[in-house]
Amino acid sequence: MISQSKIKLINSLSKKKYRDINQLFIAEGEKLVSDLSDSSIHIKWLFASKQWIEDHSSIIADEITECEESQLKKITQLKTPSPVIAICSIPDQKIQNLDIDKDLTLALDDIQDPGNLGTIIRLADWFGIKNIVCSQNTADAYNPKVIQATMGAIARVNLFYTDLELFLKQAREKNNSIYGTFLDGEDIYRKELNSCGIIVMGNEGKGISSKIESLVSDKLLIPSFSTNPIHSESLNVSTATAITLSEFRRRF
Amino acid sequence: MISQSKIKLINSLSKKKYRDINQLFIAEGEKLVSDLSDSSIHIKWLFASKQWIEDHSSIIADEITECEESQLKKITQLKTPSPVIAICSIPDQKIQNLDIDKDLTLALDDIQDPGNLGTIIRLADWFGIKNIVCSQNTADAYNPKVIQATMGAIARVNLFYTDLELFLKQAREKNNSIYGTFLDGEDIYRKELNSCGIIVMGNEGKGISSKIESLVSDKLLIPSFSTNPIHSESLNVSTATAITLSEFRRRF
Repeated sequence: MISQSKIKLINSLSKKKYRDINQLFIAEGEKLVSDLSDSSIHIKWLFASKQWIEDHSSIIADEITECEESQLKKITQLKTPSPVIAICSIPDQKIQNLDIDKDLTLALDDIQDPGNLGTIIRLADWFGIKNIVCSQNTADAYNPKVIQATMGAIARVNLFYTDLELFLKQAREKNNSIYGTFLDGEDIYRKELNSCGIIVMGNEGKGISSKIESLVSDKLLIPSFSTNPIHSESLNVSTATAITLSEFRRRF
Repeated sequence: MISQSKIKLINSLSKKKYRDINQLFIAEGEKLVSDLSDSSIHIKWLFASKQWIEDHSSIIADEITECEESQLKKITQLKTPSPVIAICSIPDQKIQNLDIDKDLTLALDDIQDPGNLGTIIRLADWFGIKNIVCSQNTADAYNPKVIQATMGAIARVNLFYTDLELFLKQAREKNNSIYGTFLDGEDIYRKELNSCGIIVMGNEGKGISSKIESLVSDKLLIPSFSTNPIHSESLNVSTATAITLSEFRRRF
């Protein structure tokens, strides 16, 4: 049984305000919960079917509650509840602990769409990018839609929400390379790229904002290969991130 | 004024059944309609505000109707209607006219999500891929959600819906290279790639089906760069398409 007060609290976590107050997020689905339990993320409450608990005897959570499907239905954010729902602590990532000197770091300048953000986190995991620095106006990574779209990658990528302008300013002062894609950049396929640095991806509609653009040290262009004088003006931010990360990683 | 019978017909076009019967699709938005009018696509009816018609005096359509916003609201598929809505003929693409010997062709094996399909069409346009061959079970490219996600690229990419297995069988018999991405393929970054051939992308959940896999001549792998023993098992199909097309085009 899940208490009424817990049901209320869990359902409130679909809203950012209550995730912030409680510093908790919801994760649903067998693969996702299994990935989270293999990570440093702390599972506070776990609600699952009898069968699931029997099959996952090694799972660690502060509290494990066996539930009938009718109970899981009361806390699910999905149309059909999965056999397991975990309530996890939002990791307390401190930007001052982030080391940007030894690897690539991804920075997001106001990415708005939860699907795009989830896809970008999944890409970061695939390309071995451990850290993503997000502007304060980037969509919340602990939104259930983002969590689902990461397909488990949220368990392995660290997210830092901070003043992106200040962060990049300090990085520039320490001579870190700051890359971004623009329509007037240099051909990414021909340009020399560093194995370390920060790659900034911009907002879906507006691209990289002008105050962030002024901090970019290396403007890149993903060239179009269309022979048609009229062609698409830009790429979707997830696909642009995919191409950029692929290009950086394939060199080293 | 738009007649009641036209309003009924136009609204029915949100369903594939009625698009097929009427061989028409809806396109909304200034950029999209402008892109379509610059392409070979035939605009049958155009409904637009007085201002829009004055600003686009060169636009060609069988019939142009000046509308108040209240009229546009009756036929829009969006929350807020754009100042222009076009009803266009679905191009009659015949697979036997498709020449696959001189360039790359994209083939889609049961892509289901309209957002993914639209993003893939937009990528094809960016990378100068003129033709996409879709299995019969691929989402309908003339679905309003797909049209919107292409951001105008639907005007410049030819789509062929056909028996994909038969099409690939015939292509193999003529010694065309058929590429596909798999977890047991060869590293795409190191493998020799042809400037011509067919690139197959698979279904979101199941990947490339076994009957199509048996027709692939060159299995490719987009390698993961994660150092974590547990990492994402796959990439989203749009991002995998982005990386694959980027890798083919950058070589030539």
